[in-house]
Amino acid sequence: MQHTNKIASIYKELQQQMCRQLEEGDGKAVFQQVPWTKDIGSGLTCVMKEGNVIEKAGLNFSHVEGDFSPKMEAILGMKANKYSATGISSIIHPYNPFMPIIHMNVRYFELDNGTSWFGGGIDLTPHYINKAQATWFHQILKDICDKYDKNYYPDYKTWADNYFFNKHRNETRGVGGIFFDRIQPKGEEAFENFLAYTIDLAKAYPNIYCDLMEMNKSVEFNEVNKQWQALRRGRYVEYNLVYDRGTKFGLESGGNTESILVSMPPMAQWEYNFAPEADSAEQQTLDLLKKELDWVNMK
Amino acid sequence: MQHTNKIASIYKELQQQMCRQLEEGDGKAVFQQVPWTKDIGSGLTCVMKEGNVIEKAGLNFSHVEGDFSPKMEAILGMKANKYSATGISSIIHPYNPFMPIIHMNVRYFELDNGTSWFGGGIDLTPHYINKAQATWFHQILKDICDKYDKNYYPDYKTWADNYFFNKHRNETRGVGGIFFDRIQPKGEEAFENFLAYTIDLAKAYPNIYCDLMEMNKSVEFNEVNKQWQALRRGRYVEYNLVYDRGTKFGLESGGNTESILVSMPPMAQWEYNFAPEADSAEQQTLDLLKKELDWVNMK
Repeated sequence: MQHTNKIASIYKELQQQMCRQLEEGDGKAVFQQVPWTKDIGSGLTCVMKEGNVIEKAGLNFSHVEGDFSPKMEAILGMKANKYSATGISSIIHPYNPFMPIIHMNVRYFELDNGTSWFGGGIDLTPHYINKAQATWFHQILKDICDKYDKNYYPDYKTWADNYFFNKHRNETRGVGGIFFDRIQPKGEEAFENFLAYTIDLAKAYPNIYCDLMEMNKSVEFNEVNKQWQALRRGRYVEYNLVYDRGTKFGLESGGNTESILVSMPPMAQWEYNFAPEADSAEQQTLDLLKKELDWVNMK
Repeated sequence: MQHTNKIASIYKELQQQMCRQLEEGDGKAVFQQVPWTKDIGSGLTCVMKEGNVIEKAGLNFSHVEGDFSPKMEAILGMKANKYSATGISSIIHPYNPFMPIIHMNVRYFELDNGTSWFGGGIDLTPHYINKAQATWFHQILKDICDKYDKNYYPDYKTWADNYFFNKHRNETRGVGGIFFDRIQPKGEEAFENFLAYTIDLAKAYPNIYCDLMEMNKSVEFNEVNKQWQALRRGRYVEYNLVYDRGTKFGLESGGNTESILVSMPPMAQWEYNFAPEADSAEQQTLDLLKKELDWVNMK
């Protein structure tokens, strides 16, 4: 479909820029680039491992189309015959427990019934929450949003709070960020503006992470911190496999499993009824895994 | 509800027997017994860790009841006002990669609309498949099934093949076993017979695992084997969070998250596009993760 093709070519080029920047920021590892083709389309999976700072990163582009299945009808609550979709999605898992996990996605979805929409977001999952850095991160997102529409940040920040939420744990995945889905801009200008907004978000992503690497890569850590990171990675796995729409849709629609699950951490742990000590840094982080915290104005 | 209460008291006593046998078989660790109460009911979570052979085991009993939610209506495809349920479920993760993971569940579900059913199963997930032991395991299950009905083993074995299947990987979770759900015995005698069948299965479970410990606990292993175990545990996590009905229903119905997710392995790994060497023991195991293998008659 027409728009999907155009947007796919923009996103595909963006992916390369993002890879180069993250490689420079890490300073050691490079992305392995693995193109794939399946009956539903093609993609380029970029995977980095064993860098200086980055233990594992996935940065995927895909462009797919196919029959709109009954399962998709059920998931999306609408009818169509064909769909096409394109997007970039990325997750980075660092070695240092004082570096956060980050996630970014922008995507465009088009149906042959005339409906189409954008979706996406960026969110940050620190193993240990640094309040000042969470505020800094949210301010960057707000500045990008405000360039386009003053409602975007408050709306999409709230959306992220509700979306990146491990309901069965009653805790947010991290400090949130922004999330939006099924955004249908009305008219050509609004459409182009929203596309430009998603491009700005994608461009901001490697900048944000490179800055976070500079801030945190040399923070010392110990075995307790590594153990806590492993348990928090377990929560990340739970979120991605139980709730994440992209993962569920991808696995359901016969997507490329290895590319979809490159989001999994290199290693994760689970321990029954683990509870950090009162007043520990770990407990302080748990206490901040809540919706509706006003990070931009946090003292 | 009447039947649920009676069955819950039988299952609760069985749980204690099972714990004692597994403790004897392991020879070191004992189950920590953690009772819990929530608005939907109560349970007893038994957790073992750091045994001689068993790295982590969960053996849970629960007895819950509550309002039949719209979500449950959608999952179960029927309408009711109230439900009650009781069951035992267990998973064991061993240290030695040449010991298999095992899982067992028996459960009874009753609605206030007059409908009730049994569900359950036992399945084995070797990190390395030992064909003779898989045959031995299936033969034990077949013998128990055949005491009740010659159709149970073939029917429930096929059901397990289809149920314990990681569709997105196109591989079975392990060598299968038996699985059944929504079994509604007609008449009092058939009901009592089926209850006795679930009790026999629960009793067989610790015997099977204690025998497997005797067979395998002293097999030597190396770092390659441990690495492979960690990756196979990753697949186990994928199965439990993406497909397992008990896990999904439990998380959805506001169950006790820590008890439900005691099924998670102590540690799991993911590696992008990992492929074992041709003809390796790891590849031989992958080649056997298929449906419709006739394990009882395997040469």
